Amino acid sequence: MIDELHARPGRDPKDELDLRQDVALLTADLIDIASVSGNETRLADAVEQALKSLGHLEILRNGDAIMARTMLDRPERVILAGHLDTVPLPTTPGSRGTVPSSWDGDVLYGRGATDMKGGVAVQLALAAAVTEPSKDVTFVFYDHEEVEAAKSGLGRLVRENPDWLQAHFGILLEPTDGTVEGGCNGTSRFEVTTRGKAAHSARAWMGHNAIHDAAEILARLRDYQPQTVTVDGLEYRESLNAVKINGGTAGNVIPDACVVEINYRFAPDKTPDDAEGLVRALLAGFDVVRTDAAAGARPGLQAPAAASFVAAVGAEPKPKYGWTDVARLSELGIPAVNFGPGNALLAHSDDEHVAAADIRACLSALTTWLQ
Amino acid sequence: MIDELHARPGRDPKDELDLRQDVALLTADLIDIASVSGNETRLADAVEQALKSLGHLEILRNGDAIMARTMLDRPERVILAGHLDTVPLPTTPGSRGTVPSSWDGDVLYGRGATDMKGGVAVQLALAAAVTEPSKDVTFVFYDHEEVEAAKSGLGRLVRENPDWLQAHFGILLEPTDGTVEGGCNGTSRFEVTTRGKAAHSARAWMGHNAIHDAAEILARLRDYQPQTVTVDGLEYRESLNAVKINGGTAGNVIPDACVVEINYRFAPDKTPDDAEGLVRALLAGFDVVRTDAAAGARPGLQAPAAASFVAAVGAEPKPKYGWTDVARLSELGIPAVNFGPGNALLAHSDDEHVAAADIRACLSALTTWLQ
Repeated sequence: MIDELHARPGRDPKDELDLRQDVALLTADLIDIASVSGNETRLADAVEQALKSLGHLEILRNGDAIMARTMLDRPERVILAGHLDTVPLPTTPGSRGTVPSSWDGDVLYGRGATDMKGGVAVQLALAAAVTEPSKDVTFVFYDHEEVEAAKSGLGRLVRENPDWLQAHFGILLEPTDGTVEGGCNGTSRFEVTTRGKAAHSARAWMGHNAIHDAAEILARLRDYQPQTVTVDGLEYRESLNAVKINGGTAGNVIPDACVVEINYRFAPDKTPDDAEGLVRALLAGFDVVRTDAAAGARPGLQAPAAASFVAAVGAEPKPKYGWTDVARLSELGIPAVNFGPGNALLAHSDDEHVAAADIRACLSALTTWLQ
Repeated sequence: MIDELHARPGRDPKDELDLRQDVALLTADLIDIASVSGNETRLADAVEQALKSLGHLEILRNGDAIMARTMLDRPERVILAGHLDTVPLPTTPGSRGTVPSSWDGDVLYGRGATDMKGGVAVQLALAAAVTEPSKDVTFVFYDHEEVEAAKSGLGRLVRENPDWLQAHFGILLEPTDGTVEGGCNGTSRFEVTTRGKAAHSARAWMGHNAIHDAAEILARLRDYQPQTVTVDGLEYRESLNAVKINGGTAGNVIPDACVVEINYRFAPDKTPDDAEGLVRALLAGFDVVRTDAAAGARPGLQAPAAASFVAAVGAEPKPKYGWTDVARLSELGIPAVNFGPGNALLAHSDDEHVAAADIRACLSALTTWLQ
């Protein structure tokens, strides 16, 4: 079938999705319906239509988000969630992580190949193939994941359709290279500002240099040893970094201000307030302002549904270092893990790609667990 | 006469300059012919016309620069130099350092009041009043001092009319509050760059933080004790500072570069290469690039013409910390000092002003010395 695709490179996007074809080819079809954040409607329409045509699912549409669920009165319910949107297409000529998709042997290139149309294809293939799962399943497809948190489609569903978001366990099909990554680190941002006194740089002694004062901030960050914290059996490695610095106004003026922006990724044993306390203690004596924070998520792998899932997948679970939407499920009291095809390090890259075999392996593991 | 001016606040700029009126009123007339850098032609025309009408001076015009000299075969020749241009007018409503000028009692407000139409008025008044000076005098009025060095009108005269720029001594009538400020510090700029390795800030250990590496640069600058160097009897105080810092690309990326911009104002015992050597030694191990340099000027107060001038003024000479065009005269082998009315700290300010008495005192001192 891949050879067949090679033979028709100029094919039109198929807005009528075939959920029963090979899941890697389905991924290519999903890539070919471009869906950069804010432009998910066409893909959402195609997904909604395909799910409706299956006939056995209860369906809800909210904006460009779609939820579809079985109602089989199983003792357990699981959520399988994924976002429909992608980051913008590459601007570098010749980039392969774009639209339309392309194949190189058995590797699929395109925007969203890893993040996360492979995962969405697995969700859709499961919806079509496993009509009588051993657990009730709620499939969640949502918009606006790759942009500011306030726009999040999942956040909107949590606010507006909370009755649909009740489950014993959740799986977010973000790329994890086929392993189970439990929970996630939290993330927080701070601005640390030094203030000096401007003066002509030919008479520096008339002023006070705010950039020189930032030396101590950077030295404390440089010398800090980030913690590794074990939570529910997984080791969460933290990161605490200056991510931006800016000071000075002109080449002949002693700078009167310097701002260091800090990003602290903290283990899910800490609340955002705990994280802020740590940063304030480290930078005692400086003007620290918290500008953003999102709690992490504990892996919750002791929950029965989670344990059975990990056993079914058969691989050693790992911690998730980046913040993902599992934290939103965790806030609802739903233990959740990340499990999906593709290497997270390729996400957003100009060279975004995924191996067809990895998408099929993910589908196979979930099919086994759900049957 | 000042009361008379108060009575006609809406007067037109006088393009026909009266060089024999009170020198403070002449300053007001010069201010009222706005001459922001690049727009000096109208003022240059007025200055040229007024000098020509005196009849005893040889005159050369080059662009918007004018030179006028006596040819009395005196054993010594002195240059009296000043720039015609100003920085732009203030944009803050209500600022008094603007055009037209205004009086507050005996204090003259306006753009160029201190920098340096008071000095230019003194030059013009001397040209008219001292027709048989004890030393031959070359008056130099030039354009484009307040902008990048490549546009300097004095630089153009040095290149194109070097025969006119021969003298035993030079006085630049930049504001010094009536004291003699000898020579000037040099100035140089450097960019110091640290390079790291970008990575997602949730996995900082995959990268290397270039901003953290800048801690050591800032610490060395903070801990450095700037030198004070005695040159020809004057104490030149140096300044070595980070004036800008910039690093980081996004809030979730480990920064792969950080650039610190440094301004080193060095005493005139050092060449720009000496200055670079000092910065390189201080920041050994870092990537240092020199981006700009201008030599300073030794005060040269031992020269006979300089010594007689200092004796005539009667005040203790001081060093000049900022770079001025005396360095261009110094490069030609002409010892030169700064001596002019007004406080240099008011230059370029929205509130630029000068006391009428200070302009008159400067004229008086130079008249006494030249007669």
